[in-house]
Amino acid sequence: MRILIRGAAVVPKPEEGVLSADVVVEGKRFAGVFPTGEAGGEFDRVIEGEGKLLVPGFVNAHTHLPMTLFRGLAEDLALREWLEERIWPAERKLTPEVVYWFALLGLVEMIRTGTTAFADMYFFMEEVGKAVEEAGLRALLSYGIIAPTPDRIEPELKKAEAFAREWNGAAEGRIRCALSPHAPYTCGPEVWKEAVRLAKELKLPLHTHLCETRHEVEAHREAYGKGPVQWLEELGAFAVPVIAAHCVWVTEKDIDILAAHNVSVAHCPSSNLKLASGIAPVWAMVKGGVNVAIGTDGAASNNTLDMVREMRLAALLAKVRAEDPRAMPAPEALKSATQRGAAALGWAKDLGAIEEGHLADCVLLDLGAAHFAPGHDPLADLVYTACGADVEMVMVGGEILMEGRELQTLDEEKIVARCRELARKFR
Amino acid sequence: MRILIRGAAVVPKPEEGVLSADVVVEGKRFAGVFPTGEAGGEFDRVIEGEGKLLVPGFVNAHTHLPMTLFRGLAEDLALREWLEERIWPAERKLTPEVVYWFALLGLVEMIRTGTTAFADMYFFMEEVGKAVEEAGLRALLSYGIIAPTPDRIEPELKKAEAFAREWNGAAEGRIRCALSPHAPYTCGPEVWKEAVRLAKELKLPLHTHLCETRHEVEAHREAYGKGPVQWLEELGAFAVPVIAAHCVWVTEKDIDILAAHNVSVAHCPSSNLKLASGIAPVWAMVKGGVNVAIGTDGAASNNTLDMVREMRLAALLAKVRAEDPRAMPAPEALKSATQRGAAALGWAKDLGAIEEGHLADCVLLDLGAAHFAPGHDPLADLVYTACGADVEMVMVGGEILMEGRELQTLDEEKIVARCRELARKFR
Repeated sequence: MRILIRGAAVVPKPEEGVLSADVVVEGKRFAGVFPTGEAGGEFDRVIEGEGKLLVPGFVNAHTHLPMTLFRGLAEDLALREWLEERIWPAERKLTPEVVYWFALLGLVEMIRTGTTAFADMYFFMEEVGKAVEEAGLRALLSYGIIAPTPDRIEPELKKAEAFAREWNGAAEGRIRCALSPHAPYTCGPEVWKEAVRLAKELKLPLHTHLCETRHEVEAHREAYGKGPVQWLEELGAFAVPVIAAHCVWVTEKDIDILAAHNVSVAHCPSSNLKLASGIAPVWAMVKGGVNVAIGTDGAASNNTLDMVREMRLAALLAKVRAEDPRAMPAPEALKSATQRGAAALGWAKDLGAIEEGHLADCVLLDLGAAHFAPGHDPLADLVYTACGADVEMVMVGGEILMEGRELQTLDEEKIVARCRELARKFR
Repeated sequence: MRILIRGAAVVPKPEEGVLSADVVVEGKRFAGVFPTGEAGGEFDRVIEGEGKLLVPGFVNAHTHLPMTLFRGLAEDLALREWLEERIWPAERKLTPEVVYWFALLGLVEMIRTGTTAFADMYFFMEEVGKAVEEAGLRALLSYGIIAPTPDRIEPELKKAEAFAREWNGAAEGRIRCALSPHAPYTCGPEVWKEAVRLAKELKLPLHTHLCETRHEVEAHREAYGKGPVQWLEELGAFAVPVIAAHCVWVTEKDIDILAAHNVSVAHCPSSNLKLASGIAPVWAMVKGGVNVAIGTDGAASNNTLDMVREMRLAALLAKVRAEDPRAMPAPEALKSATQRGAAALGWAKDLGAIEEGHLADCVLLDLGAAHFAPGHDPLADLVYTACGADVEMVMVGGEILMEGRELQTLDEEKIVARCRELARKFR
């Protein structure tokens, strides 16, 4: 299969700005980027790119897909009440069927807003895996290990391991697995050590929550005499690739540690605001050499899975946090939403740019809307002005998941109807 | 003209939640809200509301419409460089024609994202007035008085007065005028006193910028020995209705002053983040009894005019600023984006609710999208999940400005094309 995307405004990489180009896709990969009109040969498909912006697919570096079920269920509550009295009890009623359908619902949203790859941590992950397989996205999946008492350690680790062994490399390599001790405050040293051992054996990354709230960091310091970042470093957790979600309450020294070990941070701005966790020092991390990706977190605390919106918020918040309007300029924000996310998920060499040899994960946005006029700077327009609904075409590994805003792999109407029905018993 | 909006999920007022209802419009006003199926009589038009959410139109309490011209022109710069080296020089090249077309462009965006009324302060305001007249929105317009030197005082006040005298009450009352000393740091006591005198004479409100940056407040304290809020109070500026944009750097005492004088604050969260101005203490102001409305500010520092996005950001930021996830819950955010905006603009008794006798300004959003499922709480979905592109129908004073996402009063294609052409000479 040879596809030509003709004459779009293309952002091959954020740092290269925007150029008018023909992009050729062969099989799963980009076969080349040429000046408009210069891509030669025969094509099975031609996608008209004129008046459109072609960018690498967005990578959502931290989410809990099936939590679309809880969107709007428990709003505007204090964190403890929200989690302990509403979300956790609701989660105990989850079934594989429910997880499957709400994972599909989340995937519909992701495709519609241009996400092509994501890192997900939850329960009943086989169901999430099945949903991802059908939808056609790329994902790093993991079972979330929560072991607050010693008796939970072995069964939780077993579940996580079994899922990872079965699903790593599934869907022709679109699905990869991670190991996910949920957080330093829900998993003790024994879990972390065994997870790291397993990660080394199976060559998998870790995906966890880190320094999300001030309370959690203070409690950790009280219990262990050091902060969670230093604690994990000393446990050897950073000897394998790690995605650390949130990192709101990190110190300068923490930032040095994260950078030194190539830990990827999944910055989740909406969720951190909504739960009043704080504002992560994103620009200090980027300048300190940390690979800062962006995530939506689950839809219960966002309340969407829209990476376009999240990218804008990340760019805006970084400025106020750094007290500098030059912080996190548009190309850096786009990099965090694409390239850095790809690196976080373990696809650094294959994803995050539109260039020959890279996997063909890309998104076409319609620049015709009034909010894209007058168009002085399409890259800034993408970061500060665009919304998820501007996404028109989504491609993952050369497969078209949406075209002309019509989903190609999922039955949206059926999924929405089924989810509305299943949700009733959770109210 | 008698119109029935049938069977929508209706939010008559944010505090009343969502009910299924028939809404009847007669002429310019709502004639009643009835349980679905119970609106009787003959109708000239029936608008199907099933599966849709009907809310009062959004009110953008602070913007500079023609600045759509500068969207993307000068990104990610320090405030002084942005304003003094880029925006102000570009503004010196403005012509009435350019202002007219970019005002229309802004109006297209506003209609598309559900704004029905707004407060605008800029130059060449006759052109903005003409554009508003054509578009069909409701607006409070003012010429922005900038008088840094004594010789500018009289000519600036004259311009402001002439515009207000000519345009107040225009477009069958849809257009009203304000007087706008730009800010305490660009207008001295003489300007303020004369503006207040004129405002009393003409029965107009004031619309200004207040306490946007820390620097500006500190400089004012140095120059006058008191902050700008106290200074304006002592000058008697709060004896007339006032819209004060930003109010990022207000003290507890300032909040008491603003509340005591019924000053309306136009909170502009995107702009405050983008220019790294800070995060306004919105929840403290709301709890302190201040009428906090929401504005987008100009598209040069936002970069859109999308009130749906702004409402979400206001709700999220308030939580992190108050360090409390219960701050600015969804109904309060909606109130600030509608009712409180209406009050700020001087339409407190006629706008901001869907109820008998109110002017028929309302917006219909399509709830069919995947991101509105499962729909536990449509009001929370509106605030935290919706995007401007979900807006399907917009009505102002009984006139339909958009239906089925098609603009009814403006030629979008022509406006976008003309703006793209005119913008070239500003690059």
